[in-house]
Amino acid sequence: MASSESSSAATRIVWDLPAWLVEVTEPEPVAMRDVDARMRFVLELVTANIDRATGGPFAAAVFDRDSHELLASGVNLVMPSCCSSAHAEIVALSRAQQRLGCFDLAGGARRYELVSSTEPCAMCLGAIPWSGVTALVCGAADADARAAGFDEGHKPADWENALRSRGIAVDTAVEREAAAALLARYAAEGGAIYNAGTGAPE
Amino acid sequence: MASSESSSAATRIVWDLPAWLVEVTEPEPVAMRDVDARMRFVLELVTANIDRATGGPFAAAVFDRDSHELLASGVNLVMPSCCSSAHAEIVALSRAQQRLGCFDLAGGARRYELVSSTEPCAMCLGAIPWSGVTALVCGAADADARAAGFDEGHKPADWENALRSRGIAVDTAVEREAAAALLARYAAEGGAIYNAGTGAPE
Repeated sequence: MASSESSSAATRIVWDLPAWLVEVTEPEPVAMRDVDARMRFVLELVTANIDRATGGPFAAAVFDRDSHELLASGVNLVMPSCCSSAHAEIVALSRAQQRLGCFDLAGGARRYELVSSTEPCAMCLGAIPWSGVTALVCGAADADARAAGFDEGHKPADWENALRSRGIAVDTAVEREAAAALLARYAAEGGAIYNAGTGAPE
Repeated sequence: MASSESSSAATRIVWDLPAWLVEVTEPEPVAMRDVDARMRFVLELVTANIDRATGGPFAAAVFDRDSHELLASGVNLVMPSCCSSAHAEIVALSRAQQRLGCFDLAGGARRYELVSSTEPCAMCLGAIPWSGVTALVCGAADADARAAGFDEGHKPADWENALRSRGIAVDTAVEREAAAALLARYAAEGGAIYNAGTGAPE
């Protein structure tokens, strides 16, 4: 057991963001009026996370639904953070909520959208309604992630309508081809597929 | 936007654990051979989280399945951490993984069990297979949480068998009456029901 992890885990859970991500997305908010542009921004984060080897091939970002300004972005940090829950969506939502100082993105006057490079896994699908976002935009399909070797979990077959019934708009396959190509590239280059049973505790 | 959250969220996501939790569960591992004893330990954490007003009425802990020693515990931190994903199960699993220095509790020679005061919500249900635990023990039922006012999400009807098909043992209704009573007490005392749409960003 590494003493640094042990000491940290004793009092707090910390997910450090890659320095490049902080630089890319801070400090000025950026408005991206077109949904394809917002997805391309997220796919640039995927590319950077692969190229810089700072996590898995997934990214997400939270935008204001009306101004289209960026509130917070996230990338997959499962391996560097030593946390299987540090998926890009959870990172982006947590960062957005901590920036606003509230667990609930639906609690104020503004409405927020989660843009994710891939359709959410079972965990992230469950997390979305808790976050308070009122829209979800997805790039690659579940099948694209599975084709790359990632376990996506056991999701209700009607997950899109289940979200819509909660007042969450769902848009899929936005820039899907580009998004899926990044997953395929990661797998072809031998990127780690960090499903359960593949890691090695110290 | 509070400057402290903004500054923190710019470079890292932090979930601070309540000081009392660190004191209760550190530094020596504790063996609890009986599953009811392990659940009662978790229910004591629920009681403390309610009494000390440090989060919602949920707790969880990760135990070695063979030695029954405690690896890490967690409580619901949604409100104090400003993160809707900071459910007790996610906290306990993340803490366990950061203590071991690996995202995958199934990656080594030991086998781990997650004991949760309530059946997992849709998000935590999805998180469990990613964590590498090979057993889940639940106290209160999904219906008990819903009766207290908590949204549990859209879960596959056959979630128990879906976990079992992945090699994860599932045991439910362990000390259910005591676990459900804590949820009912929290609701009766006017504890915050922090579903989406109930928070107020700064």
